[in-house]
Parts: sequence; C-alpha cells; structure tokens
Amino acid sequence: MKRTGPTPGLLRDIGEFGFIDRVKRRFGGPARPGEIGIGDDAAVLPSPAGKVVLSTDLLVEGTHFDLRYFLPEELGWRALSANLSDLAAMGASPVCYLVALAAPPHATVKLLEGIFRGMARAARPSGIRLMGGDTCLGEKIVLSITVMGKVRAGRAITRTGAKPGDILFVTGEPGWSRLGLRLLSGGRPRKPSGWMRKAMRRHLEPVARCEEGAGAAGCGAVSAMIDLSDGLLPDLSHLLAPGGMGAILNEKAFRLSPGFRKAAKELGEDPMAAFLAGGEDYELLMAVRPHRHDAFLRASRKFPAGAFPIGVVTRKGGVRVHRADGSWLAGLELPSGFSHFSSFAPSVAAAGNRSPRRRN
Amino acid sequence: MKRTGPTPGLLRDIGEFGFIDRVKRRFGGPARPGEIGIGDDAAVLPSPAGKVVLSTDLLVEGTHFDLRYFLPEELGWRALSANLSDLAAMGASPVCYLVALAAPPHATVKLLEGIFRGMARAARPSGIRLMGGDTCLGEKIVLSITVMGKVRAGRAITRTGAKPGDILFVTGEPGWSRLGLRLLSGGRPRKPSGWMRKAMRRHLEPVARCEEGAGAAGCGAVSAMIDLSDGLLPDLSHLLAPGGMGAILNEKAFRLSPGFRKAAKELGEDPMAAFLAGGEDYELLMAVRPHRHDAFLRASRKFPAGAFPIGVVTRKGGVRVHRADGSWLAGLELPSGFSHFSSFAPSVAAAGNRSPRRRN
Repeated sequence: MKRTGPTPGLLRDIGEFGFIDRVKRRFGGPARPGEIGIGDDAAVLPSPAGKVVLSTDLLVEGTHFDLRYFLPEELGWRALSANLSDLAAMGASPVCYLVALAAPPHATVKLLEGIFRGMARAARPSGIRLMGGDTCLGEKIVLSITVMGKVRAGRAITRTGAKPGDILFVTGEPGWSRLGLRLLSGGRPRKPSGWMRKAMRRHLEPVARCEEGAGAAGCGAVSAMIDLSDGLLPDLSHLLAPGGMGAILNEKAFRLSPGFRKAAKELGEDPMAAFLAGGEDYELLMAVRPHRHDAFLRASRKFPAGAFPIGVVTRKGGVRVHRADGSWLAGLELPSGFSHFSSFAPSVAAAGNRSPRRRN
Repeated sequence: MKRTGPTPGLLRDIGEFGFIDRVKRRFGGPARPGEIGIGDDAAVLPSPAGKVVLSTDLLVEGTHFDLRYFLPEELGWRALSANLSDLAAMGASPVCYLVALAAPPHATVKLLEGIFRGMARAARPSGIRLMGGDTCLGEKIVLSITVMGKVRAGRAITRTGAKPGDILFVTGEPGWSRLGLRLLSGGRPRKPSGWMRKAMRRHLEPVARCEEGAGAAGCGAVSAMIDLSDGLLPDLSHLLAPGGMGAILNEKAFRLSPGFRKAAKELGEDPMAAFLAGGEDYELLMAVRPHRHDAFLRASRKFPAGAFPIGVVTRKGGVRVHRADGSWLAGLELPSGFSHFSSFAPSVAAAGNRSPRRRN
C-alpha cells in the first residue's frame, strides 16, 4: 500500500522535538523566577524548606493498562494520582512532576496529549506543574512518572512507626474503586449515573489524598501511614509487619454506606470484601497515637475526604475482624487482595491497571 | 514439559518483594540520619542548599539496548552515567538516584542485579546512592532512572546563554565512543587491549563529567553548556539555536590524538567525523565568555578530563569548520549525527543504545 505522504496527527509526523514543544507549551507553563523547566538537560527549582520527598513509578502498556479500556486522560490521571498518593502517604506536599514517555511512531498525538492532559488535570488541585522528562520511541507505550514533594523536617511519616494501642483511621470510602473495576470488567456503561458513575469515577479518576496526608503529618498524632493501593488488609500488613503486630477491626465502624451496599449488591460483590481488600482506592490508612487522638480529630475535620476509625493495633499478630453480628473473622477467612479476586483476573487485567506493584 | 519446582535464580522465584529486599541490602546502603530510603512509599532526604536539579530518562529493551550485546553491568553503568551527565550539563552535583524497573518474570536475578551493580559502580565516584524506585512486571526490560542533583542558586547553566564571541570548549576526547560502537558492531573482541580497549570502554562505560560541570558552573565564566549525547555538531546546534547564532570551529584545535587517528583508521572511520558527530561521549560542550577566559582556564586545570578550545560562537548562523589544510567545511559537507551513520543503523541499534533521545 503506497503512502502518498505523512498522515497528520501521528507522533512520527511531528517528531519528538515537535511533541516536546507541544507538551511544554500546553502542560509545562511558563517557568517561574529561578526555575528551569522543560527543554534543558535537567529541571532546576528552588530547594524546598525541610525535606525533599521523591517517588517514581513505571507503567507499561499491556501490564498496567490497556488503552482499549482506558481513555488516555484516565490513564494519565490515574498514573499521576498514584504517584501523588505516595507523597501523601509520607505526609508530603507535592512540588512538581517529571514524565518519561516511550511511544511507537504510529501513536497519535491526540492519544499522547490525552495522557498528558489527564496528568495535568490530576495535578491541578495541588497546583503542581510538569517540569521535565524524556521522550523516546518504543514498541509499546511506557510511562514513567517521578514526583517531588516536600515535608517539614521531622514530619515525614513512614510505614514503620505504629505501636500497639494505636487507633487505625482510614480516609474516604475504600472499596468504591473495586466496585468500579467490577462494573467496568462487564463492559463500560455508556451513560453511567448514580452509583455507577461514582464507582467508575472512583476507579478511573482516584484522588490522591494530599491534604489529608499533609494534615496528618502536621498534627503530630500519626505514627505510621500508607496509601491503599493493594487493598486495605494487604496494605495494613505493611504497617503491622514491624514487631509482628496485629489489629482488631470493627465492622460496625466500616463506612459501608447504603449507596455502597446497593452498588455492591448490584455487582454481586461482598461489600465488606470490597472494603477490606478492594485496592486502588488511594485512600490513606493512618495509625494514630491514642494520647493524641484529640489533636488528630481536630486536624481531620479539615480533611476533604474525612477520616474514620476502623480498629486498633494489637501486640498480638494477625488481623481479626469483629463482625456486626458478633462473630469474628481471622486468618484465611479474611478477604485478601489479588487472590480473592483472581477468579476473574483476566477481565481485571483488561479493564483495570491492577498489578502487584511495589513502590520505593 | 513438567516442571518439578521453581528454577532458582529467576525473578519469579524470589518475587518482587524479595528482589527489592536484595537491591536495598546490596545497593541502597543504610539510611543516613534524617533520610528514608528504599522500602517506604517515597524517599525522603534533606533539601540541598541552593536549587534542586532533576532529570529522568527511560530505556526500553529493543529500542535503547539489546542484552545480547551489552553486559547487564554495562547497561546499568551507561544508563546512570547518561543521567548524571544531564546533571553535569546544568553544573549540578549529583545527590541521589531512583530506579524504576520492569522485567519479565523469567528474567534472572543475576541479570537484574548486574544492571543495579553497574549503576552502583557508575554512582561511586560521586558518592551518591540508590534511594528508591519501583519494580513491576513487563514483557521487556524497561529501566527508568531519575537523578537528583543540587546547584548553588544562580549557578545553574542552561543551553541558552551563549553569545557571539564566546569560546567553545569541550571536555575530554569526543569521538572515542563512536569508535567503540563501530568496533562492537563488528563483534565484541574477546580480549581487547590498546586502542580497542579504550574505544570499547569509552562506549560501554562512559564517565559523566560531574566535576567538570560543577567546576564550570562555579567559575562564573561559562554562559551555556550541554552534554554530548547526540554528537558534537547536533548538540552544538542547541547552544546556537537561540538568536540563530553560528560557530567557527578549527580542526587544528580538535584533540585528534595519534592513538585516536590510528583507531579510526583501523575501523575505517573518518577521525574528524567521529569527533564532530560521534555521539554518546557524554563530554561537556561549554561556551566561555571571552573576558572571563582566564577564570575558566584556572578552573579547568582541575577538570579530570581537561577542557580544550575548539572554536568560537558567531553572530552569523551556520557552523563552519576551518580545516587543517586551510579549506572550509560548511552546510551539507559537515558530518551529521544520525543520518551520517544511518548506513549501518541496524548494527548500531543492535550494538549500541543509540536513539534520538531528548531530555527534559
């Protein structure tokens, strides 16, 4: 088949320089005084007061996402949000982000710009900008995002500070992302409304809890924190691992709203399993020192997503869930992350971008 | 074929957590006071005095490298050096690096650790450490490196500050990497010595000119700087682009040593073409203010790789080379980067990790 000329709209038509120029113009914004942004060998920006916080992630087409199921904007949004969530989980405030992108020459500029637009939209609430990156050719789309944040000296919150007696709080409503994934795995609804819309948006456009994380770091009451990427129970296990601690969770305290229960029922999901093992909610799980509980409650009133107590850290290992009917769940009776949902793993892999990912 | 048990030594045998633990132990080193390294949601480190400098790169198997031709250590070395070179080109000193890696489950731990070992070796001279990253599964090996550096406020050197009359200096001996690539494209020598060894090492284990870059930034005489990744002439064009400037280069000043000429002859390469358009040398090209020439010479005496004048920036556009025989080269007579070498592009792509890469 003879090609009579370049097809407009493909990466190869404008070249990598052309693409970088467009990205710089549309998403980089003008450099502020003392800054050097896109277009030089590296980005330069003022050192933040306190500490620098850095996180980097890699997303590979076919492993983490499939553009037959994700809109490019959604991919960009999710990818940056997941990174910002890592900063939030340290109690850090975002400062800027860098993006390295590999794409085949026949990728459309529209698609690639859609990814950048999604990132820019997810970046907007925190006011951060794209400061640099890298572009190269590759057979598949690969997206690597690096975020830089800042945190006051001595205020960074790790995964390892929890102690027996600490109260476990979680922001927002974990489980919705799982419901959204379940909904999408059956085919994307055309014009979703009500619970369908909420579930889809919570899966496709999760919001990093930056204000909540920074607020938690600022109040001095939070001993350990992690963001929920693999699911509440798997991520909780990271907080409990040091010293072989355990936790008692209380089902009555779980925020399983009527709307959430209805959505779960419609989708044939166990609401508690979605809550405990859903994954990809990017909510924050916090361990709060009991003697500083009041300070935490005052701080959490300003959390846009709220924060809700779900249980307590115990000296004894293992997680036990006190059910609303008075019974207990423990060990293998507990819903787990991936394995629990492995029965429809193929559609999960297709519709979502789940994969066992580890950061830092 | 029935598998009786897991084959030891594969990524899937130790899992991603197991791999991260090994990397942390071997290459992360103990966290220093006030730092949080590998294993949490993000890395935390003290804010440097002055400015933060960030650069990120993406390397994709098949596009940028082929492990049939590169040893894993060489890949790691080259990849980190290219990033450190970006920092050097801003006049920044390296602070730390992060690595995101995708690999297939059947990748050997030995191979992946080789990549990390190569990075650690390239990092050693500047004393920086691996502070975090990401690991995930992918069909091919993808390596994303982010480096952070620091530079004193007002000292960062961009690509855009050159003016007519500035003297062009280049560190070290550009062209050797090109000769090494040419050598390797004919098959890797078993026990190289002499010029073969030098050419191979300069291609496979280039050294980022961090001291030279920081020294250039510190002396206050350098108006613009860039590192040589695509080749001297293509990279020079970035320094000249603002204001449509040009340059006159003087062949007599080019550092074409007898050893270099001999190697080029053996390989059937034009030594001047290798010097001017070779690429991947990661030397630094600097524009020096003529009235601060002395300050630069004093500073450059401490450059491990030295710095040598090659020409001058002109108001008139275009690059002209004054040949040793008194003739001039200009325009299409000049050797160019990729196109010049495109006649053996396949072996280039196989043996080297050349590709039109743009940073920041």
